[in-house]
Amino acid sequence: MSTSPRAERLARARKEMADRGVEAVLVGPSADFRYLTGYLPPGLERLTMLVVPAEGTPRLLVPALEAPLASEHLGDLEVDVLAWEETDDPVALVRDALESAGIARGRLAVGDQLWSVFLLRLQEALPGASFTVASTVTRSLRMVKDAAEIQALARVAAAIDSVIDGLADLRWAGRSEREVARDLDAAIRATHDETLFVIVGSGPNSASPHHVPGDRVIRPGDPVVVDIGGRLDGYGSDTTRTLVVGEPPAEFIELYEVLQRAQRAGCEASVQGVPAEAVDAACRQLIAAAGHGEHFIHRTGHGIGLEEHEDPYIVAGNTERLVEGMAFSVEPGIYRQGRFGARIEDIVVCTAPAGLAGSSAAPESAPGARRLNRTSRDLRVVPG
Amino acid sequence: MSTSPRAERLARARKEMADRGVEAVLVGPSADFRYLTGYLPPGLERLTMLVVPAEGTPRLLVPALEAPLASEHLGDLEVDVLAWEETDDPVALVRDALESAGIARGRLAVGDQLWSVFLLRLQEALPGASFTVASTVTRSLRMVKDAAEIQALARVAAAIDSVIDGLADLRWAGRSEREVARDLDAAIRATHDETLFVIVGSGPNSASPHHVPGDRVIRPGDPVVVDIGGRLDGYGSDTTRTLVVGEPPAEFIELYEVLQRAQRAGCEASVQGVPAEAVDAACRQLIAAAGHGEHFIHRTGHGIGLEEHEDPYIVAGNTERLVEGMAFSVEPGIYRQGRFGARIEDIVVCTAPAGLAGSSAAPESAPGARRLNRTSRDLRVVPG
Repeated sequence: MSTSPRAERLARARKEMADRGVEAVLVGPSADFRYLTGYLPPGLERLTMLVVPAEGTPRLLVPALEAPLASEHLGDLEVDVLAWEETDDPVALVRDALESAGIARGRLAVGDQLWSVFLLRLQEALPGASFTVASTVTRSLRMVKDAAEIQALARVAAAIDSVIDGLADLRWAGRSEREVARDLDAAIRATHDETLFVIVGSGPNSASPHHVPGDRVIRPGDPVVVDIGGRLDGYGSDTTRTLVVGEPPAEFIELYEVLQRAQRAGCEASVQGVPAEAVDAACRQLIAAAGHGEHFIHRTGHGIGLEEHEDPYIVAGNTERLVEGMAFSVEPGIYRQGRFGARIEDIVVCTAPAGLAGSSAAPESAPGARRLNRTSRDLRVVPG
Repeated sequence: MSTSPRAERLARARKEMADRGVEAVLVGPSADFRYLTGYLPPGLERLTMLVVPAEGTPRLLVPALEAPLASEHLGDLEVDVLAWEETDDPVALVRDALESAGIARGRLAVGDQLWSVFLLRLQEALPGASFTVASTVTRSLRMVKDAAEIQALARVAAAIDSVIDGLADLRWAGRSEREVARDLDAAIRATHDETLFVIVGSGPNSASPHHVPGDRVIRPGDPVVVDIGGRLDGYGSDTTRTLVVGEPPAEFIELYEVLQRAQRAGCEASVQGVPAEAVDAACRQLIAAAGHGEHFIHRTGHGIGLEEHEDPYIVAGNTERLVEGMAFSVEPGIYRQGRFGARIEDIVVCTAPAGLAGSSAAPESAPGARRLNRTSRDLRVVPG
């Protein structure tokens, strides 16, 4: 990333800070850190913290042994790097930095995922400060992707689609979920920088949405839910397809047809100006009308970007209106406990409503959102 | 894990809670969670929280879509599982659980790594409570490993040693750090459940302790620091060896000899009753005496177990006395910025002093700690 987009993001973050009365943002190694600096430092029990005051040069507190790494990656970004030694108290150094900027009694926004051990120490060291989460400042920035981010999401979606295209070439019957998951992990790593997750739920396990692949051996007649994702150049992929091994039960085919219509309805509803919860409702109504309402036990989707789950969440109660450039999953599922389940998931980018769409709209985007995942959503049958 | 060790750990945690005036422990997916229940649930933005009151049955708040998974893994452990739906407020459910137990105004210990977004919501929902970290309760339990844990650490140490044994078979000269790191990652995965980290720092990058393997091509004459670790059955491995490609500079050989003596001194000092900082001092004195004091820019080590870095930390200022069963790294390093560096690391288990050791002491344990890593600590020369 060149200096200019980083500097622009920092300027936008500062405008948000002013609007929301936040006097400093304090983030550890996280998607916020990467969004603002282009760099993701390592981070465990030694505090690494970027302190962005509303005015003045940001400071990076970093363990001395990681200072060479930080300087190498920050390049010409205007940040004062403060290396702390193993016997220093890094929280005291953060307090000193805030005191010297005159904002130690201000409203401070800490990274949403900052460890509680650090927040509790900051609260003790800064009794006059009040604390909120950094997403107060960063969520509106990060939620709407710019052109380069959408390109990155499209690239990683194409990478995971290539793995989905290979599902038909795998052997399923007679192998354990774990064995199949290992193959999928290898295929994801071959096309991404890293694997984020691999769910392979077969037979009754297909009804457990976050099933961890185990020793169950896949058998003829089993539905199998495959939900996989990886990261490439910082951005995540996430797609789900359901397949059946050999002849599926008639009841399952019926369930799948309902699900497929619901998932399509969700994608079509994902246009600018619609409340996020309306996308959820579009899926849920069709599923409920078919008598499966109680079997759709999770929200319809989540935003995706530098994090695998981020704003906006596609869930009842979220009345925030969608804006062109928001990227999120549309992934309804129907789960019959103890029997079988199915899920279909694509990442979509919210577009302007059809009437407003420019001529550059790709064919796959009409109607509704632009689907970044392009593989067939039909039920896949593999040999039993 | 059978019920009985889990139940015993819970009982010991409750004794610590009583001693430290903690009325409930609240932990998310983490090593503490796994230590207490034998299960590590998935966890991102949906709150999963184990609430252990000082008295009464523990409760597990879990997202409904992960409830089947949790029930499958908890087995017969006495925990009330409370599944929350997507439109519920899980923090309100935690508050209700504490209120019904009459401890909503008590001293609560939250997981050290719990996300700040959850802690801030808990603090808002429970204005009468005071908060501390869960390690207040769990650190003294987890820091001293039982026999089964030491066996697990020995198994994973043997697994990483087998990767170290393969270093001589890799090609080094003419390949990038990244390429070599990819080979090491594959070798770690072949012998562990997952890779935790791979550091390959060559030439001047060997002087950056947490260097991230990059595009630099390894050349004849380069020192290379290889620091690798993985996880097997929950427990971590972590070992470092330094090698040189072809003929090393004479000055580097001298530096390495100092380092090797220092690392041995650290291992020998790791006996029961010695303050943790004395192990650090044992290494540091030898390095400083050789004129390299300012080039040893990090502490000597960290505890290891269910986490890759945990208590006890082997660092100046830590006066806590070592106890038989503590497991930690001894990993001094000497780094000449812009030129080269070296590090040697073994995981050791603190033993009783020689005079007190039982007849079962293995030969490799005398004198000092039991080294779980067994590969040679001599400088390794690979073809240039």
